[in-house]
Amino acid sequence: MNASDKPDFDSDFRARLHALLAWRRDVRRFRREALPRGTIERLIGLAHLAPSVGLSQPWRFVLVESPARRALVRDNFTRANAAALAAQAPKRARHYAGLKLAGLDAAPCQLAVFADRAARQGHGLGRHTMPQTLDYSAVMAAHTLWLASRAEGIGMGWVSILDPAAICAALDVPPDWHFIGYFCLGYAEAADAVPELESAGWEERRPASAFLVRR
Amino acid sequence: MNASDKPDFDSDFRARLHALLAWRRDVRRFRREALPRGTIERLIGLAHLAPSVGLSQPWRFVLVESPARRALVRDNFTRANAAALAAQAPKRARHYAGLKLAGLDAAPCQLAVFADRAARQGHGLGRHTMPQTLDYSAVMAAHTLWLASRAEGIGMGWVSILDPAAICAALDVPPDWHFIGYFCLGYAEAADAVPELESAGWEERRPASAFLVRR
Repeated sequence: MNASDKPDFDSDFRARLHALLAWRRDVRRFRREALPRGTIERLIGLAHLAPSVGLSQPWRFVLVESPARRALVRDNFTRANAAALAAQAPKRARHYAGLKLAGLDAAPCQLAVFADRAARQGHGLGRHTMPQTLDYSAVMAAHTLWLASRAEGIGMGWVSILDPAAICAALDVPPDWHFIGYFCLGYAEAADAVPELESAGWEERRPASAFLVRR
Repeated sequence: MNASDKPDFDSDFRARLHALLAWRRDVRRFRREALPRGTIERLIGLAHLAPSVGLSQPWRFVLVESPARRALVRDNFTRANAAALAAQAPKRARHYAGLKLAGLDAAPCQLAVFADRAARQGHGLGRHTMPQTLDYSAVMAAHTLWLASRAEGIGMGWVSILDPAAICAALDVPPDWHFIGYFCLGYAEAADAVPELESAGWEERRPASAFLVRR
């Protein structure tokens, strides 16, 4: 499609887009098979189309390839997850302990996303009263990556059970880079329309109408 | 498509998805024509498929319909935008003053999105070290709404030039609801593949490769 041709999104496309949203999933069970060469760079190029406040493009992508750094991240997850387990209500602790909450053991591709809070691009537009929109822009880039990956049959999982300061240190990033999340990518062991936390009985989804009010 | 049928995303779908990402746009120039009845509720239902930390679904949608409340929001934007203009570097102030930064004057549908930081759903999973993932989940719901809307030919614009405390007061929301953004929706005056801030010469996009590092 030529970039100047206004696209026509038809009902067939919308049905597939809705299927993509419904089947996206947070993947924690990966096959070890590597992604084809160049895949993650291409997906990051798509993530880069995300909205950003004032066109600031504040997302920063760190491809984590070094086994030593990956080990630091995994150790940090282990510690943070033990602390989170200890903070669980006693009657839920056993259930929590049985959940698989990250794919760090097998995911062939690992990516940390940051927001550069010192980004000069955009000249501050749109963030005078809400500087957190820089972080939100990076979140939308990560979400774009998620959808674009799933559309290629590549699964992604968001790991948030980490100490941000420790991750910044482990990955040696500039001090103004604010940690958004750590992402595992690869081919999922299985496709599923149901979130793993739901099928495991940890939580159930509520209807959207429960979260809409009018003013 | 049956929910149990694993969807097959082919290259045609991916090309259209990429076009959707490329043409999404932050819309600030709306026609006054209302959205068809039931449209926003349906779109919110799709936004509700977004990822959320621990399946917490912490997004809260406030459809702003009251003319009095809309006037409060618009007044707040006017004040916040004047303050942002005053904070601009002198040599950019005239340029800033000439930009149209919100569609509050004409957008037929206006929606505020919040994150419920007291959400019990999810039982705290995934947010022990990073409670901001509740906010990030609501951001992804807003981003999902953006994409789903554009796929139906409906434009959306994110207004962040607002004082969050004033918006919470104007919309009378519970104290634990954290303001994420205010969104204008409607039919855009024109479709464009280029961000308005870019065509207006405010900022230019950099290549994705500039924002990728390896560790």
